[in-house]
Amino acid sequence: MNTTKLILRHICCLFLLVGCQNGDHKKHSTKDYGKTRLILSGHSSNSIAGMLDSNDLLKQSYSKIKDQADKALDTGIEIPEPLDPGGGYSHEKHKKNYADMYAAGIVYSITKDSAYADYVEQMLLGYADLYPSLPLHPKRKANHPSGKLFWQGLNESVWLFYSIQAYDLVKESLTEAHVKTIEEQLFGNLVTFLSEDSYETFNKIHNHGTWSVAAVGMTGYVLKDTLLVNKALHGSELNGQSGFYAQLNTLFSPDGYYSEGPYYQRYAMLPFVVFAEVIQENQPELEIFQYRDQLLHKAITTIFQLTTDSGEFYPYNDAIKDKDFRSRELVFASNIGFTRYNDSTLLSVIKEQNMVTITNAGLKSAIALNKEGVNDFKRLPKLIRDGADGASGGLALLRMDTSKKGQFNAVLKFATHGMGHGHFDRLSLMVYDEGREVLQDYGAARYLNVESKRGGRYLPENTSFAKQSIAHNTLIVDETSHYNGNRDDAEKFAPQLLYADLESESVQIISVKETTAYDDVVLKRTIAMIDLDSTSSKNPMLLDVFRVDSERSHQYDLNYQYLGQLMDTNYPLKIPKSLNTLGHSSGYQHLYKTASGSLADGFGRLTFLNQNKFYSISTVVNGRTDFILTEMGATDPDFNLRHDPGYLIRRNGVDATSFVSIIEPHGSIDPRLETVQSPNSNLEILDIDYEDENYMVIVFQFKNQLKHKIILSFKESDPTEAHELILKGETFKWKGNYKLITIN
Amino acid sequence: MNTTKLILRHICCLFLLVGCQNGDHKKHSTKDYGKTRLILSGHSSNSIAGMLDSNDLLKQSYSKIKDQADKALDTGIEIPEPLDPGGGYSHEKHKKNYADMYAAGIVYSITKDSAYADYVEQMLLGYADLYPSLPLHPKRKANHPSGKLFWQGLNESVWLFYSIQAYDLVKESLTEAHVKTIEEQLFGNLVTFLSEDSYETFNKIHNHGTWSVAAVGMTGYVLKDTLLVNKALHGSELNGQSGFYAQLNTLFSPDGYYSEGPYYQRYAMLPFVVFAEVIQENQPELEIFQYRDQLLHKAITTIFQLTTDSGEFYPYNDAIKDKDFRSRELVFASNIGFTRYNDSTLLSVIKEQNMVTITNAGLKSAIALNKEGVNDFKRLPKLIRDGADGASGGLALLRMDTSKKGQFNAVLKFATHGMGHGHFDRLSLMVYDEGREVLQDYGAARYLNVESKRGGRYLPENTSFAKQSIAHNTLIVDETSHYNGNRDDAEKFAPQLLYADLESESVQIISVKETTAYDDVVLKRTIAMIDLDSTSSKNPMLLDVFRVDSERSHQYDLNYQYLGQLMDTNYPLKIPKSLNTLGHSSGYQHLYKTASGSLADGFGRLTFLNQNKFYSISTVVNGRTDFILTEMGATDPDFNLRHDPGYLIRRNGVDATSFVSIIEPHGSIDPRLETVQSPNSNLEILDIDYEDENYMVIVFQFKNQLKHKIILSFKESDPTEAHELILKGETFKWKGNYKLITIN
Repeated sequence: MNTTKLILRHICCLFLLVGCQNGDHKKHSTKDYGKTRLILSGHSSNSIAGMLDSNDLLKQSYSKIKDQADKALDTGIEIPEPLDPGGGYSHEKHKKNYADMYAAGIVYSITKDSAYADYVEQMLLGYADLYPSLPLHPKRKANHPSGKLFWQGLNESVWLFYSIQAYDLVKESLTEAHVKTIEEQLFGNLVTFLSEDSYETFNKIHNHGTWSVAAVGMTGYVLKDTLLVNKALHGSELNGQSGFYAQLNTLFSPDGYYSEGPYYQRYAMLPFVVFAEVIQENQPELEIFQYRDQLLHKAITTIFQLTTDSGEFYPYNDAIKDKDFRSRELVFASNIGFTRYNDSTLLSVIKEQNMVTITNAGLKSAIALNKEGVNDFKRLPKLIRDGADGASGGLALLRMDTSKKGQFNAVLKFATHGMGHGHFDRLSLMVYDEGREVLQDYGAARYLNVESKRGGRYLPENTSFAKQSIAHNTLIVDETSHYNGNRDDAEKFAPQLLYADLESESVQIISVKETTAYDDVVLKRTIAMIDLDSTSSKNPMLLDVFRVDSERSHQYDLNYQYLGQLMDTNYPLKIPKSLNTLGHSSGYQHLYKTASGSLADGFGRLTFLNQNKFYSISTVVNGRTDFILTEMGATDPDFNLRHDPGYLIRRNGVDATSFVSIIEPHGSIDPRLETVQSPNSNLEILDIDYEDENYMVIVFQFKNQLKHKIILSFKESDPTEAHELILKGETFKWKGNYKLITIN
Repeated sequence: MNTTKLILRHICCLFLLVGCQNGDHKKHSTKDYGKTRLILSGHSSNSIAGMLDSNDLLKQSYSKIKDQADKALDTGIEIPEPLDPGGGYSHEKHKKNYADMYAAGIVYSITKDSAYADYVEQMLLGYADLYPSLPLHPKRKANHPSGKLFWQGLNESVWLFYSIQAYDLVKESLTEAHVKTIEEQLFGNLVTFLSEDSYETFNKIHNHGTWSVAAVGMTGYVLKDTLLVNKALHGSELNGQSGFYAQLNTLFSPDGYYSEGPYYQRYAMLPFVVFAEVIQENQPELEIFQYRDQLLHKAITTIFQLTTDSGEFYPYNDAIKDKDFRSRELVFASNIGFTRYNDSTLLSVIKEQNMVTITNAGLKSAIALNKEGVNDFKRLPKLIRDGADGASGGLALLRMDTSKKGQFNAVLKFATHGMGHGHFDRLSLMVYDEGREVLQDYGAARYLNVESKRGGRYLPENTSFAKQSIAHNTLIVDETSHYNGNRDDAEKFAPQLLYADLESESVQIISVKETTAYDDVVLKRTIAMIDLDSTSSKNPMLLDVFRVDSERSHQYDLNYQYLGQLMDTNYPLKIPKSLNTLGHSSGYQHLYKTASGSLADGFGRLTFLNQNKFYSISTVVNGRTDFILTEMGATDPDFNLRHDPGYLIRRNGVDATSFVSIIEPHGSIDPRLETVQSPNSNLEILDIDYEDENYMVIVFQFKNQLKHKIILSFKESDPTEAHELILKGETFKWKGNYKLITIN
């Protein structure tokens, strides 16, 4: 669709909208309650009120909001001078105020009890009194957009996002004089501040931009300000280079992957879905939910798939770990997604969230949940493409036993850098079991909103450690992070998908290549989840093949951040007298070297206990290999880092080499029954039978099982292509990218 | 009661018993099923069979056993040569065999399906074939009683304990020839081995002895061997110096406290209650459940009280942490306890265990649970006396808000050493909140049954670290453990209770004294749980006053093993370049010194985040004080220790001093809502106003609250005694051991 045309069409519609709905509002004209413009209509409110007794989900979801509103009314209104940074009193209070107003607005809309409307009204009048004279926030950060109520502009957008909804719900009950005061002195000034004074953020392709355009755009609909709406949709210059559409075009891949990663996608989904819902209500002719081949549908389903079996987001990039998909933001996403796309898998999500929003979409969701038999939400194997055109790498979710909660699963990340919150984690692996982290991504070094931890900001160790390659389960060359830790360079390139096959019952495989992370080293990683015993219940293990090629010799470190207590190794450990750091830069300065060992042949094995389950990592020793145990937390004067263990497999002074490992869950402890099963690895043979630039043949055997060979291709290839390999006189022929052979 | 008389009476009864019940058993004489002698009668079996459809608890409890038995029958019988130590194949298989036999015995008894009886019969015949020629176990430990099937004799007793029950349940279905083979070749040899070859264990006052006498005694009843029963009750010499009665007399205090501590009490309860139940069934005239003022009732209720709000046992002494009161052993204890004492609080326990045993007692419990409205199990404040006469110290459980699960609670241990599994932990504190450890006892250094961790035995670090004083929240003088780590010395003495008052609404207090842990240092600790705001929901904090007196100057280290991430301290931290051990012996060699700071006045504060809640420890600095942060895991070549943090408050070169601290829970993080409350301590004033040998006056004030003084007495005293203290011209008069004063 031509962008200029599109804009013109919107402008026309908005004029019409303004024409027919102008001047509707009277003081306490409860008959006009239907005239809200945002996500909870008078009609829905009436239906919800009538349904509270018969629909438990609706009732309990509403009760929480009612409790919050009642507490807020009890406490009364306080609007403190904006003084404190994140986590500080005034910061938290202004956050609480918008949340309380929004709750009170909803309760008014359900009960028509004017006390709740009065609360919102008085609060908004208080802010209308305060706002016009506010300077930029005294605790603003250098080189970071400031707010006036808050130390960062982002919070200001969020404040408006909720407050305009609260206003929308109670506006009918206000006097015209108060409407004028609030709209002009408060909302008028706020949108000016956000869209003009903070021009750069408003026009930024970034989640801060999304919050800004959503809040401003929603305000535009409520204030019936066509131009404001159009700026929100198409950018300040109305040229489509920025604004909501530009963000939909750029921030998501065709698979609905958000380049900053799931932690921020979760946060960004709220303005995306709520603003889309508002657009749909006010300008249905835009068919926003159909836009870009139903992009929002993909974005919503993708964010739910990007969670572990315990519901937490895979914590790559800057991510705080205990956020899960029951977060309030994502209740909006599931409710609106279900309503707009009639997707029953989203109903499964809502069932697990065990909550609905008190909105038009929440009402429909609650009704549907009451009617239908809802299946459990399933986390499926998935290849998710990154990049606006889907051609910039992506993410592979290896999940074999989707029938049960708590399946053994792995994530291979080969996506784009992910902007300012990206980490130098090319080809990084994460492994989970029973909802627990087994091989962890460190996540972010941040204690959100904890004042004593630098005001809740990202900590210095986020840059010096968490973002560095060594804080990930990937390979590091010469103790230097990917792209030498330079974000601009990292943003330019994405890894390349060689092949993926996640469809098979017994093997799920992904093979990727990264040629730009280091000047003269090519990284290739192939991860295969293999279930040798497909007759019984799934018991998969992971094969991890990391091949590096270079013309020059280097030091290669493959890092595994296992979680748990070390049980044993099959090589002797040397323990240092004093603990020293493993290196001096690229995050190595934050690791203590706690022990080391080495082998010249065979395979090296480390076994650890994570909760009540054992895991072994066994790695082929093809050339002298050092095994280094590490602990995080060195060079950390403020104790900002967790002291988690790590396992580094090092090969030094070689040009090309490969790290072939099997990551094997085995056995368990039952502390109640005091029984232990299979505490030792069952792997008896692991070796590389053949290797060249194009192929690798790996042989492995588990106790009491047959010997297996797997032949892997290292090139981008066609699943139907025929291959032939003659190995020790034996000819292997197969089609496709790999072949698993059982040897009798 | 005179012991000799008692024995004679038992012997008479047993002769009668033998006379009337001899020769009852025929092949498959299902009419005679009522003739079991142990804890599940034919009559109960019939009732259970008839009730499975109407009683869910019974049904689900039985189903698990049925599943186990069915799996066992499917798998068939295998009796491996006894070769492996704990955790090894043959060890685990012999354990599984007795458990499977017991399950099959129960299922036979409920269903009368001969397949289950045949399974037990064939298994027992297999063992009857194997046992007579078995040597001592090849993997037996030096200086440790060996078994034949198992590397330690204890397992052999447990094997008999279950197998004799299985046999009792199926005996009716066996041919006389098979009865003879099994009774003579298997059980006859087993009891000879346990009671004669292993004479020392059989006569030991220790849980290994309890298991031995219970298994042998139960076998005596089944084999109708009077002498065997009497030996089990009164010791091999029938003189009451050993055997079951002697164990009841010696191992428990009058409050039912078991000197080895809850972890072993849990384990020992099973033979105690089951053997008592068997005695009651066979010799009701002994009134075993009335013995020693209903000692077993106290033992059963005490073990349930000795659990955290998440159900785990307080892990002092040698204890593995994730054992909880839903352990199978304790389902027997709750069921038998409820049945024999008709105690409804035990019904609450059974409700939480959500399981009953398939026994006479389990049947009665399940029926009662179906009938009655059962209250939740409450963990109450308690003073539990230790020592056979109740005069050897004890344990104080400070629990203020018993209305809710997850209350903030503290344990002060001032008990006896606790035999071979005791730790040098005089006056040690443990703190819990929301069921989580806040200040932890390290517990035991052991991975039970994990072969790679020294065959699952206690690890060397259990002695060199876990038992040492520094692995506890207590005070260490001159880097030397209490009693210099000498167990014999520690066994001789117990700390002294000064006073305790756990009854008040707003203050629970315990004051204890230890004069023998060090030659020339007297240790006194007073712990008060204080709730200043008793008008609203409880929000208690802990006052910890540790006073030391000596004629000579020493180094005093008060250790707090906090769990969580350090947030900040109110003094600057110095970070070493390399991590070195804190000391060279008494467990100090296992700690790294990770940071340190010091203050000369005021109070030192450390704040940490444990899960989503903040805690601060604030300590008065009365004289130069060093604050040392530690991490466990040094000098640990096999990575046997957890790497948990610690906080040491050190005063050096003084003779008498006191450590006055407030341990304050405050604030929280809600990761879903991204809100943070009260991340900083609210304590504004903490100081010692006055101190002498008899009294201490502490002043403290929290933000937005009134100032308080608390006057403590340091002597054993009468709660009604009048005290008078003139302080800075002001006269304080009060009655009792302490006085909390609010200052306007």
